[in-house]
Amino acid sequence: MRELIVDLGERSYPIYFGEGLLHQAAQFFTKRGITSKSPIMIVTDSSVAPHYLSVLEAALQSGGYRTVSYIVPSGEKSKSLSQLEEIVTVALEAGLDRSSTVVALGGGVVGDLAGFVAASYMRGIKFVQVPTTILAHDSSVGGKVGVNHALAKNIIGAFHQPEMVLYDLNTLRTLPAREVASGLAEMIKHGLIWDAEFVAWIDGHVQHLLVLEPESLSYGLYKGCSVKASVVAEDERENDLRAILNLGHTIGHALEAVSGYNELLHGEAIAIGMVGSALIAKHLGFDASIHEETKRIFTKFGLPTSIPPHLNVEQIMDAMMHDKKFKEGSMVFVVPTAIGQVEIMKDISAELVRQVVIELKEEI
Amino acid sequence: MRELIVDLGERSYPIYFGEGLLHQAAQFFTKRGITSKSPIMIVTDSSVAPHYLSVLEAALQSGGYRTVSYIVPSGEKSKSLSQLEEIVTVALEAGLDRSSTVVALGGGVVGDLAGFVAASYMRGIKFVQVPTTILAHDSSVGGKVGVNHALAKNIIGAFHQPEMVLYDLNTLRTLPAREVASGLAEMIKHGLIWDAEFVAWIDGHVQHLLVLEPESLSYGLYKGCSVKASVVAEDERENDLRAILNLGHTIGHALEAVSGYNELLHGEAIAIGMVGSALIAKHLGFDASIHEETKRIFTKFGLPTSIPPHLNVEQIMDAMMHDKKFKEGSMVFVVPTAIGQVEIMKDISAELVRQVVIELKEEI
Repeated sequence: MRELIVDLGERSYPIYFGEGLLHQAAQFFTKRGITSKSPIMIVTDSSVAPHYLSVLEAALQSGGYRTVSYIVPSGEKSKSLSQLEEIVTVALEAGLDRSSTVVALGGGVVGDLAGFVAASYMRGIKFVQVPTTILAHDSSVGGKVGVNHALAKNIIGAFHQPEMVLYDLNTLRTLPAREVASGLAEMIKHGLIWDAEFVAWIDGHVQHLLVLEPESLSYGLYKGCSVKASVVAEDERENDLRAILNLGHTIGHALEAVSGYNELLHGEAIAIGMVGSALIAKHLGFDASIHEETKRIFTKFGLPTSIPPHLNVEQIMDAMMHDKKFKEGSMVFVVPTAIGQVEIMKDISAELVRQVVIELKEEI
Repeated sequence: MRELIVDLGERSYPIYFGEGLLHQAAQFFTKRGITSKSPIMIVTDSSVAPHYLSVLEAALQSGGYRTVSYIVPSGEKSKSLSQLEEIVTVALEAGLDRSSTVVALGGGVVGDLAGFVAASYMRGIKFVQVPTTILAHDSSVGGKVGVNHALAKNIIGAFHQPEMVLYDLNTLRTLPAREVASGLAEMIKHGLIWDAEFVAWIDGHVQHLLVLEPESLSYGLYKGCSVKASVVAEDERENDLRAILNLGHTIGHALEAVSGYNELLHGEAIAIGMVGSALIAKHLGFDASIHEETKRIFTKFGLPTSIPPHLNVEQIMDAMMHDKKFKEGSMVFVVPTAIGQVEIMKDISAELVRQVVIELKEEI
């Protein structure tokens, strides 16, 4: 088992990586001081529940914990205020109190939604993440939780750190291949923004990672989380440095919004976005090899590197104007200046972004 | 003008009390470093808007601030997730960004709702309170914000401290007499939990306060806020001491819930609740004069001291079981042990509470 401490002072917490951790959930809960006097609520989704919900319920109950479970439909649409309201109904009926804990069993959607329930129920109760996707290695570090609004993703939320993250690698085996690759896109991002050696390691372990070989997977997730933890430890509330984590996300979020949150997986959208950021770098005069390398590695993982032709350029631009990275009207972009290194640039013109969006539609 | 600093380390903020402050809003905003580059959103309600919205808009605009306003229907029902969603729609359309500020112009309902918008919009932006009721002197200190759920009040929320509170005493002149008395109930509560001398001062200034004589009003609000600020400074996130502020609120919230959030004003409900807490003290063997004094002072302000006869005892008890003060199943009550002094008692039996509720229905 690997362990990583996310260092946030009195809000520090551990991430445990290993095989079969789900069965030992009660021991981990007890170790972290989570009381069995108050009921625990497990939030999960309709894809994950059939595989792992009864395992987690049984594991917790065997340790004396009372649990209540809530299953949301799988998919981004469940990150809504109406789901929040429903979950709070169930929480109240089950008698959840201020000493209760909300457990997110699932991927990023479940983590964000359940995390915002934990952040806002009685103005904040404890929260445990049990990620069942690779993508969630990203969202399980940093405490960003929230729901979507019809006009913008993640616009209603909070910063709420978990008590711990229990990463049972065995739960990743049921992931479809396309979701594996999508999750690895965030892992690659952590290399691209921070650590060229990690990018080289990923490049040398593409097949190991795609087939979920445990030792490579454990190391990759650990390293990905480590990069994010380092960034978040320096800037918990996204005032400055933390923005580098948004590499590829400005274009990526716009693509997800315009394609209706279901055509492109999150990792696919940000892979295209990262190629776009590398194109911006190229136009700004940075080494063209950054663009070539970025494109090469995503292609190696079978991830898309161009915008689907039927998506409309102006709709993509409009969606970006709602993006919360546009602080005080100026356009902020995270731009790679080398492999493993990025800069936050505050004066990227809308014209350049539009040109890059057009080029991204034409890339093959 | 009086000024009080709520001392919360890096989240400290000032409360300004005075006549005509609304007209000088822009100066105060600038003084507190609020940028005019990003739009400002004013949230108010249908009762307050006709009197003060255009004044505040004009004052801010004269200082170069761009504003967008949103008017909710007056009343507790506006503290809902659906209003939150609507306000976020308007905020996005108006281009509010991470440097924007939400201003609450109104009473506690508007403050709680707008505060939760500020706490959750883009995971937290700045917040300014401009209270227009006496009751709001209470909610403007402490950073508790949130909305109601069909099953319980204030159950979805956050702790989010304002940048400042602008208390323009002139805005209180349009309050109906019943709301004035209701607001003063919270002021009296601050005396009862902390400061017997302040209770004596209030007792000697009943008429001054009821007719809103500026000097008495300013002093009373300042003292009330000071008590609350002292408590909150010691316990920002309601782990322990802060619970004393709930004197009268466990029964009070239940009465509000059972009567449908409109028959009783908040101050009226907690006045009855405080008489109930004093009755509990009497049953526990504390001096019977606490009950007599509590009842006498509320009567002097024309506030109710008994439960309306048509409200059902079992419904009131059920409503209390959902109250978030019932930590881990045990019943917690704030009980007065003298005038100006309370204790948090963790083992009050439901039977005793039921008996007191029955007695409160019979009090005259």
